[in-house]
Amino acid sequence: MDTSEKILRQAFAEKQSAVEAQGHAVRALKAAGAAKPEIDAAIESLNGLKLEKASIERQLQAAIGGGDGSLNRETFRQAVVNTLERRLFYIPSFKIYRGVAGLYDYGPPGCAVKSNVLAFWRQHFVLEENMLEVDCPCVTPEVVLKASGHVDKFTDLMVKDEKTGTCYRADHLLKDFCNEKLQKDLSISPEKAAELRHVLAVLDDLSSEQLGAKIKEYGITAPDTKNPLSDPYPFNLMFQTSIGPSGLSPGYMRPETAQGIFVNFKDLYYYNGNKLPFAAAQIGQAFRNEISPRQGLLRVREFTLAEIEHFVDPENKSHPKFSEVANLEFLMFPREEQMSGHSAKRIPLGEAVSRGIVNNETLGYFIGRVYLFLTRLGIDKDRLRFRQHLANEMAHYAADCWDAEIECSYGWIECVGIADRSAYDLRAHSEKSGVALVAQEKFLEPREVEKLVINPVKKELGLAFKGNQRMVVEALEAMNEKEALEMKATLESKEESPFYVCTLGKNVTIKKNMVTISKEIKKEHQRVFTPSVIEPSFGIGRIIFCLFEHSFYTRPSKAGDEQLNVFRFPPLVAPIKCTVFPLVQQQQYEEVAKVISQSLTTAGISHKIDITGTHVFPLICFGSKG
Amino acid sequence: MDTSEKILRQAFAEKQSAVEAQGHAVRALKAAGAAKPEIDAAIESLNGLKLEKASIERQLQAAIGGGDGSLNRETFRQAVVNTLERRLFYIPSFKIYRGVAGLYDYGPPGCAVKSNVLAFWRQHFVLEENMLEVDCPCVTPEVVLKASGHVDKFTDLMVKDEKTGTCYRADHLLKDFCNEKLQKDLSISPEKAAELRHVLAVLDDLSSEQLGAKIKEYGITAPDTKNPLSDPYPFNLMFQTSIGPSGLSPGYMRPETAQGIFVNFKDLYYYNGNKLPFAAAQIGQAFRNEISPRQGLLRVREFTLAEIEHFVDPENKSHPKFSEVANLEFLMFPREEQMSGHSAKRIPLGEAVSRGIVNNETLGYFIGRVYLFLTRLGIDKDRLRFRQHLANEMAHYAADCWDAEIECSYGWIECVGIADRSAYDLRAHSEKSGVALVAQEKFLEPREVEKLVINPVKKELGLAFKGNQRMVVEALEAMNEKEALEMKATLESKEESPFYVCTLGKNVTIKKNMVTISKEIKKEHQRVFTPSVIEPSFGIGRIIFCLFEHSFYTRPSKAGDEQLNVFRFPPLVAPIKCTVFPLVQQQQYEEVAKVISQSLTTAGISHKIDITGTHVFPLICFGSKG
Repeated sequence: MDTSEKILRQAFAEKQSAVEAQGHAVRALKAAGAAKPEIDAAIESLNGLKLEKASIERQLQAAIGGGDGSLNRETFRQAVVNTLERRLFYIPSFKIYRGVAGLYDYGPPGCAVKSNVLAFWRQHFVLEENMLEVDCPCVTPEVVLKASGHVDKFTDLMVKDEKTGTCYRADHLLKDFCNEKLQKDLSISPEKAAELRHVLAVLDDLSSEQLGAKIKEYGITAPDTKNPLSDPYPFNLMFQTSIGPSGLSPGYMRPETAQGIFVNFKDLYYYNGNKLPFAAAQIGQAFRNEISPRQGLLRVREFTLAEIEHFVDPENKSHPKFSEVANLEFLMFPREEQMSGHSAKRIPLGEAVSRGIVNNETLGYFIGRVYLFLTRLGIDKDRLRFRQHLANEMAHYAADCWDAEIECSYGWIECVGIADRSAYDLRAHSEKSGVALVAQEKFLEPREVEKLVINPVKKELGLAFKGNQRMVVEALEAMNEKEALEMKATLESKEESPFYVCTLGKNVTIKKNMVTISKEIKKEHQRVFTPSVIEPSFGIGRIIFCLFEHSFYTRPSKAGDEQLNVFRFPPLVAPIKCTVFPLVQQQQYEEVAKVISQSLTTAGISHKIDITGTHVFPLICFGSKG
Repeated sequence: MDTSEKILRQAFAEKQSAVEAQGHAVRALKAAGAAKPEIDAAIESLNGLKLEKASIERQLQAAIGGGDGSLNRETFRQAVVNTLERRLFYIPSFKIYRGVAGLYDYGPPGCAVKSNVLAFWRQHFVLEENMLEVDCPCVTPEVVLKASGHVDKFTDLMVKDEKTGTCYRADHLLKDFCNEKLQKDLSISPEKAAELRHVLAVLDDLSSEQLGAKIKEYGITAPDTKNPLSDPYPFNLMFQTSIGPSGLSPGYMRPETAQGIFVNFKDLYYYNGNKLPFAAAQIGQAFRNEISPRQGLLRVREFTLAEIEHFVDPENKSHPKFSEVANLEFLMFPREEQMSGHSAKRIPLGEAVSRGIVNNETLGYFIGRVYLFLTRLGIDKDRLRFRQHLANEMAHYAADCWDAEIECSYGWIECVGIADRSAYDLRAHSEKSGVALVAQEKFLEPREVEKLVINPVKKELGLAFKGNQRMVVEALEAMNEKEALEMKATLESKEESPFYVCTLGKNVTIKKNMVTISKEIKKEHQRVFTPSVIEPSFGIGRIIFCLFEHSFYTRPSKAGDEQLNVFRFPPLVAPIKCTVFPLVQQQQYEEVAKVISQSLTTAGISHKIDITGTHVFPLICFGSKG
């Protein structure tokens, strides 16, 4: 044991005792029915001690090279969350009725931060990019979410405690089991450890059957009761309801705002003068009926999304303003780096696009704009990375997908998804609704296009096939280009060709006089196509939570007798921009203070006025770092 | 027939033909598959003609003194609504799937107006009044809405077509029947007419049985099929859902945002330094699963509410800033004027409060602030009135209630409700949750309070009543002040008093030595009470719709060949504040235009830039009137 480790261990033991003593003091105050402010101050000081202990522990772990810091992260988060809840940034919803898991209110300062973030989002995206903002209802009829695939596929696998009926997410239980075994059971063999690590790596890809088999194999039981568990089965995560009184129109609370934009594509395209590209945007509530919400403020059942659907010609995904972001350089984590076990690295955005790491300029442009948005809000740029989806994470139709991940006490958390979803969504709604959601490119000059023309000669075919003539004609017309050109070659060389007619279930012989196959030049005046959509989707609540963590620090009070918890917000998001307080307590100063306060209000600047000499928030500061 | 009538009738007939001819033209264009802009232009011109026709009709009706203008209102509304939908202010939600009744999207300009209105609401109320804004989820557990009374009482009476199962609102069918009879059946007797008018007047007060009886008596059948109808039964208007996967936690989409504030009262009161009065505010979606939505954009199944809950000491409802609104004078429609058949009249707000027409200063202050809010938005002050609820409209617990009603093509429409709900909501949640939602007034000096003290002398009572002693003791202790003082007097004069003990079901005789009843002086250090709540609740969608109607007018184009539909918005709400277009089409002007446009964007001023010489919106102007 070297000297620094010795000193640290001693300091840690001392701090540990101090935490315990302060813990006792808090409990004693509570038991004695002390006033809330007094208890709060004691808890505040306890949290300060815990943070100091955590800091020493971190140094100790660094010195002895062990630990993953998860304990420190827990302590840090607890200090942040306690401060947030005590200062009413958040309130567990319906708290007087013991709350509902996964539902939180924003209290006054939280609500102010949220509305500042949304106002900046509107400025940064909608206004600066001339987007078409829409506002659609949350209640959505089933047909829309059938088309989008949510009714069939928006599910998590669930297992039930066979005796109590309590529900759990199957993958969570398996993950917890593997992690606990790996961390706490030192007796497992290296082979077993490797197996558990493999299970963790492929967890998201396991089928219902595979998950069920693993749960059986490992003997996993219900965490609360140790009762046996049911087989996994899919549970749809949408809140279901019924529209109107008949009970015959099922509906859901939307799981995302995007579908409201897709179904309006035709009108929005017309509104935009029938021109591409254009982007539509929407801010609104979305809902996920989580099986058993964990991760507190990050995994919630109702949340605010801000989504952009940028519609673009699939043959031209360049962006006129890409040069404005090309020189940005920040942490990117491409697929290849992840697969080869490397970590994220700083890559200039222009290079990422030109080297094909990012699929196209428009996707790259939005990655750059998201980077600017988040860092201007106050997200620490060193704890922000753009991670590319692995092949198995991406929907089959997606061309490319990057998540803006922010590091917080829960690890790297997806806060913005930026996906090139190709033409999938518009095609799905075109098919289901029968309304063509397409764009046209009118050619300046008509273009000559070579087209394959198949002309069955009905007279000859009638003579040869009689009652079967129609089936043969249809089969000939249905040939694709390759089949038709092969037949043409065979007919030219051999005068006849065998031909399988599936509606007859047999081969027939086609003679040269029965069909003409040729390529003809045709003039076309326009191209009709389904646009691709590039979708940046922002989880506003998650961004705000990370912002709180990144803005949080503690410092000793001036007297040095307690730890103060401070949020250092940029002015852009600060719930209160400034405080007006006269330095001297005199009538004439008070009046001036009131005039200043009134002017600030008129200018829309939120502030506190404090003419009492005692601050309302002695333990919290809304500072600025810009 | 005098000359002016003759001329008007002729003009009307001519315009009628023109409308018909243009209608044919539109249909012909559609049948020929003409381009959308061409069809739109034709419809635009048709609407212009219709408006001119309506204007002549109005003059004609005025000349011959007949009609209630409802036809003109329909025509006017149709012109407004057509313009709104064509310009994507609104879009029927999920239109490509044939829509859902009562659900509308805001398209880009509508969305911009909405966010301007909400931003002004935040400025005018939250910021200027230092309100505590919160943001609670829409998904609400049953227990909360049980306590508020919504689970049991938030219903409409419904009847079903007995063959097809189609549902109708019972009162709507009866109302339609009475109106149609009165308007179209000239053969009904004066008595019958009086009866129908009476039914219309008391419609809202009819019980389920009375409604059912009237429907039977008048032989009312299903409007679409003429099938017989079921008896009326209550249908709960909340969208129901289930929270979590177990199916055991029923929940609803909130019908108002207010409950989220009430359940947080304790925390908010603490946040406000345990001081009254204070106001909390919330903007958010609310939901009503209407049986059969009518009145288009006014009666919808999902809408944005902005609600204020102002908590105040029931013994002191004065407002420090009342003098700022006391001199406002606008249309008020007190209960007495309504009952006596008079119309609304202009009353200075200060007078309305001092004369007791408005219950208290705080209620009056909010009425004034709402007036300022609406008129600054652009609501015509001559088409805005504050109507007091009649006794039968008001909940039994309400102290007073005023609706801000705005006149639009649907008549006078409730857009803001301003109610003094007394202590009802906080009491209901205190009882249900067991958490005391109360405020304390700490006295500067302890106050001496006279308290009634009843002391049963158990020994004597035990001797007299044996096994019944406990019941007699409890009954004595449960006496109210009046009963106790009466007994005291009787005992003093007659030495004994008869006393009814309900748990025994009989009278007993209480002698003077069995109980002492006295008034004692006690010292109290604080008063604990349930605050009253004054609630201004804004239907944002309705306000916006009325704003659209009040801002709409038509004028001939410069060439005089068509009618232009114009919205004259105040700058505050205009979706686009200005347009930048160079007067001369030259490269150097274009560049300056772009620089100006960029500066406007940076300043957050929405605008169009048009360097093409052809305007994107030839038929619409976003002007200013302020």
